[in-house]
Amino acid sequence: MTSDDDKLSAEDRLIARFFKPVATHPGALGLSDDAAFLTPPKGCDIVLKTDAIIGGVHFFAEDDAGTVARKALRVNLSDLAAKGATPLGFLVSLALPKDIGEAWLASFAEGLRADADAFSCPLFGGDTDRTPGPIMISVAMIGSVPQGSMVRRAGARAGDLVFVTGTIGDAALGLVLRKGAAWPLNEAQRAHLLSRYLLPQPRNALADTVRTYASAAMDVSDGLAGDLAKLCRVSQVAAEVEVKHVPLSDAAQAAIAADPAMLETALTGGDDFEIVCTVPPAKADSFRAAARGVGVPVAEIGCVVTGAGARFLSADGPALAFKRASFSHF
Amino acid sequence: MTSDDDKLSAEDRLIARFFKPVATHPGALGLSDDAAFLTPPKGCDIVLKTDAIIGGVHFFAEDDAGTVARKALRVNLSDLAAKGATPLGFLVSLALPKDIGEAWLASFAEGLRADADAFSCPLFGGDTDRTPGPIMISVAMIGSVPQGSMVRRAGARAGDLVFVTGTIGDAALGLVLRKGAAWPLNEAQRAHLLSRYLLPQPRNALADTVRTYASAAMDVSDGLAGDLAKLCRVSQVAAEVEVKHVPLSDAAQAAIAADPAMLETALTGGDDFEIVCTVPPAKADSFRAAARGVGVPVAEIGCVVTGAGARFLSADGPALAFKRASFSHF
Repeated sequence: MTSDDDKLSAEDRLIARFFKPVATHPGALGLSDDAAFLTPPKGCDIVLKTDAIIGGVHFFAEDDAGTVARKALRVNLSDLAAKGATPLGFLVSLALPKDIGEAWLASFAEGLRADADAFSCPLFGGDTDRTPGPIMISVAMIGSVPQGSMVRRAGARAGDLVFVTGTIGDAALGLVLRKGAAWPLNEAQRAHLLSRYLLPQPRNALADTVRTYASAAMDVSDGLAGDLAKLCRVSQVAAEVEVKHVPLSDAAQAAIAADPAMLETALTGGDDFEIVCTVPPAKADSFRAAARGVGVPVAEIGCVVTGAGARFLSADGPALAFKRASFSHF
Repeated sequence: MTSDDDKLSAEDRLIARFFKPVATHPGALGLSDDAAFLTPPKGCDIVLKTDAIIGGVHFFAEDDAGTVARKALRVNLSDLAAKGATPLGFLVSLALPKDIGEAWLASFAEGLRADADAFSCPLFGGDTDRTPGPIMISVAMIGSVPQGSMVRRAGARAGDLVFVTGTIGDAALGLVLRKGAAWPLNEAQRAHLLSRYLLPQPRNALADTVRTYASAAMDVSDGLAGDLAKLCRVSQVAAEVEVKHVPLSDAAQAAIAADPAMLETALTGGDDFEIVCTVPPAKADSFRAAARGVGVPVAEIGCVVTGAGARFLSADGPALAFKRASFSHF
């Protein structure tokens, strides 16, 4: 008599059905093994990053599962972009409440697949567990850079210029809007802010440019003010930012016009997934041109000086004082 | 005026205090950056694995925090061992309920540090979040093997011998014991089973030997019967195991003598974190000698044949039929 162990377990079936299509790298072995392997690109360092998102903390339970999957990937891809790294692939660890069924998983896996394709970042392996708590998606991202070239927070020097990509504050304002803020926005403005919260647009297109020209960089995930201060701390410098130069979308400007307190939310709220970096003045024109070449808008917002801290200067007064410069879970 | 963003956030303080001492690799940058880098060993593939443990699911909430940390690492180290890989380091993602305080974290980090040292496997980075649910610890493990040499589940051939390391069933029986089983065991036997559940003893000492001699291998985490069946499925072969040759500890033998149904628990319960592997007969003596050389007990339990499934043969009857050949969360 043969035991039934030659049949696939429910967990193995789930993996084969939903996640195997995302595991396109040959070293993932179709997720049929305990581990995956990867031959590192010649002359490269491996870059490692992990970030998790939790239902009810980082996203709403009712959010579309495919969008949740893409957010889980993109918050990690954004770090690779800021470090000048190219994605190689990822691992995912899923804790699923009992009420997560096959429809949710199918949509989640489709979202993973779409972004794994879009960012050339296949699934190398994963782990699925049932949990009595909220859903948690933990991604470990693996990238590469030419040896010794990972862009760090350390490296900014007095005299460097401070740049950010895209626009700042949209996601944080999108979250406030989603919670019920009644600003007089038009439909396009509402949609812009809400979508920036729902789905980050990481700047991986700029990774090579950052690696070539930036003296220091990080992604803006916990708020521009606090994140720039972190960069300054590790670089042992200070930064002075002209608030009027911080790029704001049309929608963010409308929200701030309706409620001036929203300026602080924009500068400290986080979830931007833009890049803040410092560039030596002699390289600034080349940096701008390279960014234009890959279609990523960049704005010069200030400069690096000696000292400590990041000061945000308004046109006609003292530096802004923030209640809380950046988001922290603790 | 300077905002307070030049001070460390609570999350950064927590990381600097508890986790920085575990991040001894220079590429971890003292956990002061967004990502870490690692120059891969020359001529090597990177091996990737992730596995998570959840409070109330994989361990008891009252378990010692340092032991929980070591379990989280070791369930992943065990996979590297079975794949013939050497640990390089790990990432950890932590979801912490509000009632987890500094004492728990200090003990947790000390456990991480102890095993990071013992297994030469430093912390490369992490992520900490608050959760309204149970504690979850997700580890992503990075290892290396000489290029093209990761040992797979596929590769077993009819005629190969089946080996397991150590003893089988102790952890599964330890869990039953912890839940209140009243077997007539002496104190040493009780302690043995309980400790095997609490803290895996992965066979990383055997990694090179497995890589040199095994045709296929995996770690036994979900039960010997089911895991061997998985190996057979991917290798497209069958296995026949003599139950009397499956190595059982003195404590497991006493538990099974008290309750014969515990034999099935031992063979299917999981959490062994031993290695099951197949070895061509011509290499079996060398495999045994190499295992002896690194102090890891190995036992020949059966052989690979054509067909499908893993059959567990008793001395005087038909193959055992298991209710459930291996543990599954789904």
